[in-house]
This record gives sequence, structure tokens and C-alpha cells, in this order.
Amino acid sequence: MPAPAEFLQYVDDNANVFIDRLRTAVSYRSVSGDLKRREDVKEMGEWLNKKLNEVGVTNTKLVDLGYQTKDGKKLDVKLPPVVLGRIGEDPKKTTVLVYGHYDVQPADKKDGWTTEDPFKLEVLADGRMVGRGSTDDKGPVLGWINVLQYHHEKKKVLPVNLRFCFEGMEESGSEGLDALIIKESKPGGWFYGTNCVCIVCISPVYPRHTSANQFAAFQFQSDNYWLNKDQPAVTYGVRGLSYFYVTITGPKKDLHSGIFGRTVHEPMTDLFALFSKLVSTDGTILIPGIEQMVPSPTPQERALYERLHYSMKDLEESVGASIAIVENTADTLMHRMRYPSLSIHGIQGAFSDDGPKSVIPGQIIGKFSIRLVPPMTAKKVEAQVELFLQTEFAKLKSKNTIKIDHMEGANPWLANYDHWNFRAAKIATQAVYKKDPDFTREGGSIPVTLTFQDALNVNVLLLPMGRGDDGAHAQNEKLDRGNFINGTKLLGSYLYEVATIDKKQRAQCK
Amino acid sequence: MPAPAEFLQYVDDNANVFIDRLRTAVSYRSVSGDLKRREDVKEMGEWLNKKLNEVGVTNTKLVDLGYQTKDGKKLDVKLPPVVLGRIGEDPKKTTVLVYGHYDVQPADKKDGWTTEDPFKLEVLADGRMVGRGSTDDKGPVLGWINVLQYHHEKKKVLPVNLRFCFEGMEESGSEGLDALIIKESKPGGWFYGTNCVCIVCISPVYPRHTSANQFAAFQFQSDNYWLNKDQPAVTYGVRGLSYFYVTITGPKKDLHSGIFGRTVHEPMTDLFALFSKLVSTDGTILIPGIEQMVPSPTPQERALYERLHYSMKDLEESVGASIAIVENTADTLMHRMRYPSLSIHGIQGAFSDDGPKSVIPGQIIGKFSIRLVPPMTAKKVEAQVELFLQTEFAKLKSKNTIKIDHMEGANPWLANYDHWNFRAAKIATQAVYKKDPDFTREGGSIPVTLTFQDALNVNVLLLPMGRGDDGAHAQNEKLDRGNFINGTKLLGSYLYEVATIDKKQRAQCK
Repeated sequence: MPAPAEFLQYVDDNANVFIDRLRTAVSYRSVSGDLKRREDVKEMGEWLNKKLNEVGVTNTKLVDLGYQTKDGKKLDVKLPPVVLGRIGEDPKKTTVLVYGHYDVQPADKKDGWTTEDPFKLEVLADGRMVGRGSTDDKGPVLGWINVLQYHHEKKKVLPVNLRFCFEGMEESGSEGLDALIIKESKPGGWFYGTNCVCIVCISPVYPRHTSANQFAAFQFQSDNYWLNKDQPAVTYGVRGLSYFYVTITGPKKDLHSGIFGRTVHEPMTDLFALFSKLVSTDGTILIPGIEQMVPSPTPQERALYERLHYSMKDLEESVGASIAIVENTADTLMHRMRYPSLSIHGIQGAFSDDGPKSVIPGQIIGKFSIRLVPPMTAKKVEAQVELFLQTEFAKLKSKNTIKIDHMEGANPWLANYDHWNFRAAKIATQAVYKKDPDFTREGGSIPVTLTFQDALNVNVLLLPMGRGDDGAHAQNEKLDRGNFINGTKLLGSYLYEVATIDKKQRAQCK
Repeated sequence: MPAPAEFLQYVDDNANVFIDRLRTAVSYRSVSGDLKRREDVKEMGEWLNKKLNEVGVTNTKLVDLGYQTKDGKKLDVKLPPVVLGRIGEDPKKTTVLVYGHYDVQPADKKDGWTTEDPFKLEVLADGRMVGRGSTDDKGPVLGWINVLQYHHEKKKVLPVNLRFCFEGMEESGSEGLDALIIKESKPGGWFYGTNCVCIVCISPVYPRHTSANQFAAFQFQSDNYWLNKDQPAVTYGVRGLSYFYVTITGPKKDLHSGIFGRTVHEPMTDLFALFSKLVSTDGTILIPGIEQMVPSPTPQERALYERLHYSMKDLEESVGASIAIVENTADTLMHRMRYPSLSIHGIQGAFSDDGPKSVIPGQIIGKFSIRLVPPMTAKKVEAQVELFLQTEFAKLKSKNTIKIDHMEGANPWLANYDHWNFRAAKIATQAVYKKDPDFTREGGSIPVTLTFQDALNVNVLLLPMGRGDDGAHAQNEKLDRGNFINGTKLLGSYLYEVATIDKKQRAQCK
């Protein structure tokens, strides 16, 4: 059942009201990674709660998650509240759980914003609405408020029961959220009885259970978006991640390379020997057993990737150089979405500044990560990597010592895209954009998808509102006016389609 | 001819006067690497000039080297003066050129100095005189002033003609010094007619022609010292250095490893593949043609190293770990002194902080250096390294680009230790310390030795005053009282031995 024409018209008629509300949302400097801004994050949560109340979601609560921790110790700083809300208690209706976040990445005019102030939304002549949080994730969250406003103002009953979960720590590791989701998914909890989950625009942040400080290191996140600027998408999978620290310890302190060069085993020599065995130039992971975990794609699966709207030019534009490993889009997208990848990120403890310092570093930590796809699990990969590194290090016959650590791993997530939840999203997309959406998987890692899926045992859908060039965590983050307005229509339409399809197909496809 | 007994007695009798003068010298905060301290450096040079005048060296001049440069551009900061001096114009006497420096490394109480103030010399009960510059190089420079004081006060004519060259930029790259040495070595110049050079305690600083800023990066210098705490040494060689920057450029900016992992060629993967081919765990340089440049030691040469006073315990204590590549001192010392070595120092542009940042670095600069021994030259090594890296990079079939740069290389220096200059130093050492000195080569790089040798075409001697544990550039830098007093006797005795030996042997050994 399509959304009522009156709803679509209402969205068009109220575009400016919606944009004004987004402007207010952007004006909150709700940077979760900056402890000095914690009060702003909290106020943003309270504002969002009020907005829910204003559009008819009167049953809300602000959940106190207690104090933030750092390196296992409690800080004297409270976590921002999780905003829970519920509307509709009709047991005959489908219950949709909606997740989003109201915190944002840091932003400073000095970083190269071309607008007056990153926290002042500017609507440009070409339709770009520039401001921190516009696309990640205040625009999408307000998309739901827009849908609710229509139903509240026009006194229309929603076609589904809705549950809301809006958190304020997504950009800083979602501290405490997993436990809350698990608790609220149990009988008597706010999420209990949910039939499907819809997540609009979320950053593939990993790892989640870490300190705000460590999170500040993640400068280059990307988000769940359309693959390019023109083609809507729905997303049914994300890769997992195992992140490794390899500490090699030699001399007690850094040494002068003139005096000690060639007299002692050097940790840097060991690390380069070791890390050169991890991955080949073409991206193949050389650690035995890792590639073998992943089955080859069937011709049918390959066809999925050949259908996606992506060009080698899209890749080249994104990276600013002609350095593609393979020269066709199907393999490129499979490399991104359905194969594991291994990247070496850096070395801690070695000389990293400008100039010619010539020491022998005494202790170094090499860092690399592996993106995981089903059926890989972080646990299996970690064991395999540790065994390999220990074996290869022993072969070097170095007198230095090695220590291998890893972050808490994130398993990959893959949903059944034949599920009615995805069909509803597809039909709604066709209705609003007059195009079939791309069915995509995401190369990044979004652990909350798996948490919802496992806690509720229901289908989870990622429904992107923004485009591939929105620059979520970068300077001049934007959401296009068209995407905000059509995105609002899409969210509303999706609810109507869920309500109809569900009735027909719920029995046959759970 | 030994130094007069009266001189030796005078040195003992005036020890406290000498130490007081060293205390004054240390009180000058003549940190050449800190532009804010430039006036202190200049004042220290003027003080030193006055001290020379006071002890009879009335013919001095302060040479203005003009303005300091940085990255090729002139700064609005004058270089400190080079203090030139001459005493004795007797054409029948040997002319000895003495080099030293009056600037020091930075020092801050906060870095871990256990004395009241790094610039306040403290004489401890065990004889250690702790203060910045005590051993590097104010103590040794004042050793010459002490020798001169005796001759001036007692109205004794010096056994040799002396020329002095004391600079104030040694710790910051000796900017402008090479040109001055070359100019003053020509007919009519202050150094013209020099028969031999004696350098007391100098840091193996390299590269010289670089900015003060870059120099600040050299935190862990070592100096020319005795090999251990007990055995005097004379030094007849230093290794040269070629320092390489390997820039690999891929994406225009750092990329999210989730989105782009395995879709594009990663500079880090290329760099690890490349640098793993440079050197083996046991220190052997794998670049073709490099090891082959150096002849194997003859049994006679090996015997030289077997005689040196050094133990594996000395090495283990220095590095704080049992990580020696070979377990005998002769090979360890040959690895340090007469073989080349290759060390990888770090990567600029990759993630180097704490935590789990997961980007693909877009452009990185890998840095390594090779210490050179005769007959290697920086030029030959640079060509060989560039060819190798280009060839190996091509084999990787990466679409990233590579650029190979190197600092201006420093050739190794090796003096003829059978020369009368060294014999004089040996006899003087035997007289003062009642021990044969170790004849050593240094693993670090001291380009000024080669500049003097080439400009004057005479023998250059490094005559260390301090011990192996002085900690020249570290916290609690010290010079032992015994080394200062005996070192003064050694310098004086050396001059008397030079005067005698020279007459006999100058003809047969130039």
C-alpha cells in the first residue's frame, strides 16, 4: 500500500518547516567526542525528546547510561541519554524499531569549512544543505519526525507501531548501548515485540567499546549511503573487523644507529619482515587460512554486483588517483563488500615527524586490520593471525620479543534481502525515486546492526538517506535538499509498504 | 718529549680554578638549536674569545657567518661567531689545528635532570661533574685553555704553533663551517700551514647542512668517547651516512579502510614489501652491491678489534637488553666500526599515535639510512639504492608512484693511525694514564673530520676526553673530574710529543 498522496503533498508543502527544524538541530554542538561539549549533547537529546512529544510520541523516556569510562576507569562525566519512544500498541500491526543518533563528529571552521560556521546550516543555491550532522545523522533522524508530524497534525493513525532508539554516543563508541538493546529486547522491554528494524544512515564505527580519546583517532569514517549521487540504495550487509597491535621490543630505549647499527637486532627490521608477509600488492591476504574461509561467488552472486550503479570513474573520483586494483566494477565492489581486506595503518613508537632523525626505535607497535565477511568470525581470524605471526617471527631468529594484541572484534553482518522488510524498502524507493534501489553491502563495520539482529532475532535494514558524496565526517558535510525531502517521503512510504507486505508475507518469511 | 713535570703539577694544583671556569662556561645557555637562546650562544663565543685572550692567545677573531637559513630561506637570525685564534708563528715548529665547539644540546630540568639546574655545574662526591656541555664540548675546549694558562702564567713558550677553530653551531648542523674551513685552509688563511688536526670530543652529527628544526629531531646522538669507563682511546675513523626518503603516493587523501580496502593499491603495502628487502635480521644489507663494496678484514685487522677493551656486557648495559647479533666483541665492534649498517627509522604520514585508527594512509615517506665505511662513498651507495628500489618497486606492479630522495651524504673518514699525530697521542696517553689507548673507529658520522682532512691534506686525530657513559646529549650529562684533569694533562702532553716526534718523523710519514 503506497503512502497517501496527501502525505507526499504535505511533505512538499512543509519542506521549509522541516529544514528550519534541521537548522535548529544542527545548531546544537552535540560533539560526543569532546567532553567539553557533553552538556550540548545532553541538551540535543532533550530537544529531540521534546520534538517526539510534539509530534505525538508522548510515551518517551531518557535513559541514563551512567558515567563514561576511559581505559576501564570511570570518568566524572555522564553519558548522554538514550532517547526511547513508542507510539502504537496495536497487536495486529507490524512493529518497526527505528534507530538513529543525535551526536555528531567534531567540526571546526579552521579545518576548511567554506560556510560561516559548521553548526549553522546553510542551504546553498544548488540544494546542498551544509552543516555538521546534516546527513550524519540529524537529517535522517528528523526524517522520522517529519513523517510523524504529518500523522499528528492531520490526525492520521500510523500504519505500524513504532519504537524509537536515538543515542548520543554513536560517534564515540556507543558506550553502554549494547547492554541497553539486549535488556530492552527482552519481554517487558521497550523493544520487545519488534518485527523489524530500520536504520537510517549510520557510520561504520568500530570498535565501539573504546574511549572517546581513541575514537578521536577515527577521522575518516564513511557512512551508509548511496553508492553514488544518483542511485538510491538499500543495504543488507556490513563487513566486520579485527584490529591487531603487534608490539616488538628490542633495546630498552631508542638507540643511535651509528653506534649500534648492525650490533643489535632492530625491531623495525623484524616488523618490516613480518608485515611484508601479510598482504600482496593486489590485496590478497597471505596469512594462511584467511582467504580460504570465504567461498567464491556464484555466477548469480556476481550478477548482483554487475547490476549495481557504480563506475570506475566513481572510484577514481573518490580516491583522487587511478590506482584501482581491478578495472571492472563488479570485482571492485566485491572486493569492497564480499571479500575480506587487510590494511596496514601505521607504526607507533617509530620516528614519524619531518626530517632525518636516525635512531633505532627501541619498541614499536605495528597496526593492521582485517575486514571480515561471512562466514569469517573475528575469533577465528584472530587465532589464525596470532599463530601465523608467532610462527613467522620465530623463523626470523631475532632476539627481540613479540606481543600480539587485538581489539574486541566485530563480526560481519549480512541480512536476508528477500525479507519483506527489504521488499517494503524497495517498493517505497521505486515509488519515491522512480528507480530500483541498489542492493548493497557496506565495506565498513557497523556492529549495532548485528546487536539488533541477535537481540531481537528480526530482520535489520539499512536505508540510506544521503548520497555517496555527502562527506559525513569531513569538512562541509551536507545533505541535499532533495534527499531530505524525498528521504522523508521514502521513510513514510516504507512504513505503509511494511504494513501491507507484512500482512501478506509475514507468515512465509520471518 | 714528555710534558714538563711542572706542567703536570700545575694542572693538579689549579684543578679548582679549572673547574670554576668550566662552571662559568656551563652557565651559558648556549643552545644552538633554540633560536630564543641565540644571544646566549653569541655571548658564550665572546666569553671564550676573552678567555683565549687572557691566556695569551691575543690574535683572535670572531668570524661572522651571516644569517641562518631554513629550507633554503634566510631567517632573521644571525649565526653565532666562529672563534678563530692563533699563537706561535715559528716556521720550525709543528702547527697543530685544534677544533671544538661551544654550543650545546637543549636541556630542561623537567627531562629528568637530578641536579638543581642543567646549566649549573654540580661536582658530586664521586667525582662526576654534572651539567649540560660538561663533556660535550665545553670541558674538552677548556682543556686547551687550561694548557694555555700554564704556559701563559709561567711564561713558557708552547712547543708547537697552535691554531684554534671553535664553532657555535655544531649541535645544529655546523651551518657555514665547511666553507670557512676551505677558505681558511688556503694560502693566506688562518689554517694555512697546519701540519695536523686534533679534535677533542665531537658528536657524530649528521647531516650538517640542514635546519635547526630538523636537527632537533636528532635526540640520541653519541659522541666520540672511550669505549668504556676505564680505557682511554684515540679514534682514527668514523662511518659516513646516506639517509633515504622513499615517498609512495597513492590516494589523494587518507581513505577509510572499510570502504576502500582491497579496491585500491595501498602505499603501506608497497612500502612494507619494499623495505623488507633492505636488510636481514642479522644486519646483512640485502641491496645488491652494497656489502660487496667492503673487503673482508684480514687476520691482522681482526686482531685489532680483538685487542679493544670491550665486553658483551658493555653492549648489553648500553642497550638494556640481550639482543646482540653476534656474541663476541671483535665481530660486534667490527659491525659497529668497519662494516656498513642499515637501519629503518620510521614512516611519516602513516598513523603513529595511540589507539586503533583504521585509515589507509594516502602518501607516506619511509626513512632509512646506511652507515658507510671505506671504500664506500655516499654517491655510489645512493645510485645503487635508487636503482634497487626502482627495480623492486616495478616488480610489485603497484599503480602507486614512488619517489626516492636522499640527504646530502657524508663519506666515511679513515685516518692513517701509524701517523706521528697518532703516535704522539698514544705516547701522551701512556704517560698520563699508564695504559695503552684503544685505537678505535666510531660508528657514528662526523663529517668535519673529512672536511679538515681534505681541505688541509693533513692527518686528523680524534682524541676523546670523556668516558663512554657520559651521556653527552642526555639528561645528567657529566664529565668526570679525573677525565677533565687528566684530559688537560693529556692535551698538554700530546703537544709536547707532537713537537718531538714530528721533528723525527715528519719527513718519512706525511
